[in-house]
Amino acid sequence: MKATVHVMLKTGVLDPQGEAVHHALRNLGFKTVNSVRQGKVIELDLLDETDETDVNDMCEKLLANTVIESYKIDFS
Amino acid sequence: MKATVHVMLKTGVLDPQGEAVHHALRNLGFKTVNSVRQGKVIELDLLDETDETDVNDMCEKLLANTVIESYKIDFS
Repeated sequence: MKATVHVMLKTGVLDPQGEAVHHALRNLGFKTVNSVRQGKVIELDLLDETDETDVNDMCEKLLANTVIESYKIDFS
Repeated sequence: MKATVHVMLKTGVLDPQGEAVHHALRNLGFKTVNSVRQGKVIELDLLDETDETDVNDMCEKLLANTVIESYKIDFS
């Protein structure tokens, strides 16, 4: 079983990495970019017997800082 | 228009961040994790007139290091 976890900074939390990418894109001549947000993607290769709630626990305990980050889990 | 870019290390490229997450998950008691790969996700908010090939250029020039990283673009 595979799970893909997307971790993004919550709306309103300053994203200096995204800002840096935005500036760099503008300097390269890409003028049609309004804003950029950068986050993490974590691909987990799991044993088939893994409980889906375990993946939720992994996010809450380690993968995301839920004070400032939101996460989304996709199973495949 | 929004574009989401996923940047992952290519298969075979050592991923120390993913390894660190894997070890941390095992230490937390999650024993059903076979492997972990960590990458970046970049959300671009673009003007509607943006050419989709421009986003490809952004990846080639800035967002991904194509020597060691692969990227995938989703438009929405």
